[in-house]
Amino acid sequence: MSKIIAFLTDFGVRDPYVSAMKAVALSIAPDVRVVDITHEVRPFDIEEASFILLAVYRYFPRDTIFVVVVDPGVGSGRRPVLIETQNYFFIGPDNGVLIPAAEEDGIKRVIVLDNPRYHRHPVSASFHGRDIFTPAAAWLARGIPPHELGSETSPSTLVRPRLKLEARAEQGKIVLKAIHVDVFGNTILSIRWNRLVELAKEAGIKLEIGAKLNVVNLSSGKSAEAVVERVFSLAPEGTLVLYRNSFDFAELAVNRGSAARLLATRKGDTIVLEQA
Amino acid sequence: MSKIIAFLTDFGVRDPYVSAMKAVALSIAPDVRVVDITHEVRPFDIEEASFILLAVYRYFPRDTIFVVVVDPGVGSGRRPVLIETQNYFFIGPDNGVLIPAAEEDGIKRVIVLDNPRYHRHPVSASFHGRDIFTPAAAWLARGIPPHELGSETSPSTLVRPRLKLEARAEQGKIVLKAIHVDVFGNTILSIRWNRLVELAKEAGIKLEIGAKLNVVNLSSGKSAEAVVERVFSLAPEGTLVLYRNSFDFAELAVNRGSAARLLATRKGDTIVLEQA
Amino acid sequence: MSKIIAFLTDFGVRDPYVSAMKAVALSIAPDVRVVDITHEVRPFDIEEASFILLAVYRYFPRDTIFVVVVDPGVGSGRRPVLIETQNYFFIGPDNGVLIPAAEEDGIKRVIVLDNPRYHRHPVSASFHGRDIFTPAAAWLARGIPPHELGSETSPSTLVRPRLKLEARAEQGKIVLKAIHVDVFGNTILSIRWNRLVELAKEAGIKLEIGAKLNVVNLSSGKSAEAVVERVFSLAPEGTLVLYRNSFDFAELAVNRGSAARLLATRKGDTIVLEQA
Repeated sequence: MSKIIAFLTDFGVRDPYVSAMKAVALSIAPDVRVVDITHEVRPFDIEEASFILLAVYRYFPRDTIFVVVVDPGVGSGRRPVLIETQNYFFIGPDNGVLIPAAEEDGIKRVIVLDNPRYHRHPVSASFHGRDIFTPAAAWLARGIPPHELGSETSPSTLVRPRLKLEARAEQGKIVLKAIHVDVFGNTILSIRWNRLVELAKEAGIKLEIGAKLNVVNLSSGKSAEAVVERVFSLAPEGTLVLYRNSFDFAELAVNRGSAARLLATRKGDTIVLEQA
Repeated sequence: MSKIIAFLTDFGVRDPYVSAMKAVALSIAPDVRVVDITHEVRPFDIEEASFILLAVYRYFPRDTIFVVVVDPGVGSGRRPVLIETQNYFFIGPDNGVLIPAAEEDGIKRVIVLDNPRYHRHPVSASFHGRDIFTPAAAWLARGIPPHELGSETSPSTLVRPRLKLEARAEQGKIVLKAIHVDVFGNTILSIRWNRLVELAKEAGIKLEIGAKLNVVNLSSGKSAEAVVERVFSLAPEGTLVLYRNSFDFAELAVNRGSAARLLATRKGDTIVLEQA
Repeated sequence: MSKIIAFLTDFGVRDPYVSAMKAVALSIAPDVRVVDITHEVRPFDIEEASFILLAVYRYFPRDTIFVVVVDPGVGSGRRPVLIETQNYFFIGPDNGVLIPAAEEDGIKRVIVLDNPRYHRHPVSASFHGRDIFTPAAAWLARGIPPHELGSETSPSTLVRPRLKLEARAEQGKIVLKAIHVDVFGNTILSIRWNRLVELAKEAGIKLEIGAKLNVVNLSSGKSAEAVVERVFSLAPEGTLVLYRNSFDFAELAVNRGSAARLLATRKGDTIVLEQA
């Protein structure tokens, strides 16, 4: 059974960056499986990359090696790291992008990728994805143990993540953020569903199926009534729905429509849920 | 030799949906080959997905498993199905999207994917692509026989397709639809070339190489003269050409230009071919 | 160890073209590895495809087979060719697209793909990517020797490339072209870094780390001061940087910004570097 390397970057697919990484991976580890998570993260958007990694990592087979390259600080002092967790390996820059997923899975060990033996030479100043991260992943896939790839460091030295699941209950309302707007305009909120259920109790908001809420986008000034449903397709067309999405986050969606368009929502906007 | 799972969705590649499906496929069937057909179908556009599947399925090796997820009705009552055909397996929602390809290849058996043993649990209400369709494909790739995956049903119970190859001959003209506009602006018409030859005879239109036709887009009001050629590159630059495309459909193209721009054509427009 | 076929086209990924090629490859050579370089080359832009191939080919394992389909002349007289080089195989139309990479690696032999035994039949007039180029690649991957695929011809008969690394030194300045603008707005210039060092000496321009230059885009009329750095991330945010990029080309970039936006640069623009 081949090892899997899963790539997540902000490189797009027009330029030679992604294929150069795959070429290097296959040069070192010819039998490795390469899988694209996405390369369409907005340039430099560490927070977005963090969210996508957090959402998807757990569906991959045990021992999958994730290579995440959203790396505006490449070539400056930031460290290249491997984070070994309970079930996976996360490789990328020490800029916080790996942390939400790695912490959720449980960090076992952190290695700074400073052993030049496992770099591709010459190491360019601007493309560590190809010259440091991917080689580390490929050597790992070939069986080189993590501690050979560099020096161990304490998890406490890692740069903290930008992605925060911000949400708070106030009297009669819950305040949170839009952390992702997907291709359908579905708007993912900065809270796991189970935590929303707790906050709703604190705030005195009813959240059972069929309950009605006011949803206000404080950033755009738009608001609309939403119904709590198991899934958007059970509501009439055009209705705003609040539901537990398939990645266990709270999400706003419109049946055969776009929640983001309805509320003029962009990633990062502040969203308030109130009792209707 | 590994089995192939070929994915066709409207998920785009920015979000974690496609990679979650691949992750699940590789978790169940580590040796499976995953191939992307496209994920850029317009959101909810069942007709477009049908056309692309119909165009491409026959080039895949025998026993390829197609997973098609254009599924606006996910979570409502629509059934998840596996259609076994003479040479392939088609998996997706029972909303008509699989039918044109499956019927062309010859339907042998239809299974409703209702055996929870081969679902991924918990089954989300909004992402059957990950929790029902892909697991079914992966278990099939691992050798589980179709009848284990659910209950057999009659092909006559399947929802009929939206994609229709509409074309009719009238006195001196042929009326059809633009069913697809490709990245070059080539405009694919709702008729196989062989059928166009028959209709042209009925309508009294000459269709041999070098013949001239008037092409009218009734929806946009634009028209232009076209020449029948073996391929667009044989006509002078800028000339509108009617030809048999590489998927055996009738197609309008402009040598080093865009037929869609010339006639202001969008998918679904009504196109008339007349004797020049 | 499986052979690799790497695809580079202007087909986009919305249409069935790319997946049809992969389907054909896997039908002929079930164990082959398929890798996408990109399918987002601008339609018909042979020069752009040449540049991307030139940048990335050398990172692939020895014996990789490149299939390049940017082919506005398909179906006209242009020849389908296989160019065997010191380390690789390049397959595509004889329109110059393969030449910069093939010549850099060292051409050993050129075969015109005229043996119908290794075509897919019927050969369409408009999609040689599927019916001639990919079958040739897949048969090659399966061990058919190049000379079986067609007739040998002299490299001197090949159509010359459109991509030219144009650069010249004048008194106190260097004149070159923008050959590629990447997803970050980084602007790649038409010169390898080592050659730029030579021209800078000729022109009397200082190019050591920290040196300042005026950069003028003659096509847009915009200009800005740039600093020579090892990498953009070492300059203050917003600063224009001239540096040796990771593919050994000279490149303009802005730390956390877009060099292309700063200078209103599009591919093909004429860029002048002057002593500040």
